[in-house]
Amino acid sequence: MEAGKEKLWEKTVGSQPIFDGKIIKVQIDTVELSDGTMASREIVKHPGAVAVLPIREGKLLVVEQFRQPLGRTEIEIPAGKLEPDEDPREAAARELEEETGYKAPELIHLSSFYTSPGFADEIIHFYVAEELTVGTLQPDEDEFLELTEITLDEAFEHMRAGRISDAKTIMAVYAWQIRELTGKWPL
Amino acid sequence: MEAGKEKLWEKTVGSQPIFDGKIIKVQIDTVELSDGTMASREIVKHPGAVAVLPIREGKLLVVEQFRQPLGRTEIEIPAGKLEPDEDPREAAARELEEETGYKAPELIHLSSFYTSPGFADEIIHFYVAEELTVGTLQPDEDEFLELTEITLDEAFEHMRAGRISDAKTIMAVYAWQIRELTGKWPL
Repeated sequence: MEAGKEKLWEKTVGSQPIFDGKIIKVQIDTVELSDGTMASREIVKHPGAVAVLPIREGKLLVVEQFRQPLGRTEIEIPAGKLEPDEDPREAAARELEEETGYKAPELIHLSSFYTSPGFADEIIHFYVAEELTVGTLQPDEDEFLELTEITLDEAFEHMRAGRISDAKTIMAVYAWQIRELTGKWPL
Repeated sequence: MEAGKEKLWEKTVGSQPIFDGKIIKVQIDTVELSDGTMASREIVKHPGAVAVLPIREGKLLVVEQFRQPLGRTEIEIPAGKLEPDEDPREAAARELEEETGYKAPELIHLSSFYTSPGFADEIIHFYVAEELTVGTLQPDEDEFLELTEITLDEAFEHMRAGRISDAKTIMAVYAWQIRELTGKWPL
């Protein structure tokens, strides 16, 4: 712990399992705050995920798919959950090829970020893929996807229309604009 | 539904409540895919949240706080959950003043995004606040925060060091860089 930051710290004093699902687990943690008071925290445990920002001939490859929590389809960058013990970079290469049919000679790691640090431990490992070559399209069995290529202007149009409306894809569009403006990915 | 997108659609045929917490609810939905097969989806329901990108004299106001799902503190832009029936813009103004002690004459809406559309319906309404004036610092009772002002370079340093590691704050830093490069917020 960094000096002077003690008052921010919370100490876990208990944890009650609530749900053990196929993908997520839910638990209620009891924490002691720095002033001695107790508080409870509802926590979702998630296996983690990868997302890829794939650029091909100046366009972004995106997939449209149904998202049950939203009750509608959404246009997103290719992404998927980590398999147990899977290396994030290999998972990103796997998801890219499965969902778009393209492979990249290398994946550049942009960041690894938490999607909802207030209640979930989901982390997304986020990569850029360029110089794509043809691989094998192979979506998961219960996954119906529609692949499209869009320009930067079209990406902003989709954002304004709410068809692109998730954190990782908006982040990808911003990163791509920074790359267009500066010649460099934001690292 | 858009024509030609029928194969992407999923039809909800059942929903089993699992957990009804103070903040989140969890349910397992049963969906019918377009090929007639059934699948289950673990869904977290969340009240929604707001986040604010506050710029004061060329620096970003950020708060460091403990995040139990991560087991450590993190530096984030000011944010908080929506109260029942609360207007997002009013919630953003409230969270900004509570967490930083500053008020803004207006809040610019940048986007409203889903943090984890694969398993959660959490939406964050995301605003920019500039021309800040002094208000009243008033953090929530069980919330210990440390307020800091950082430059754009420092923001990228914090990202590289993993001290800034959540989606909304990385998105804010990218948006801020675009504003610095173009003179305009990405809208």
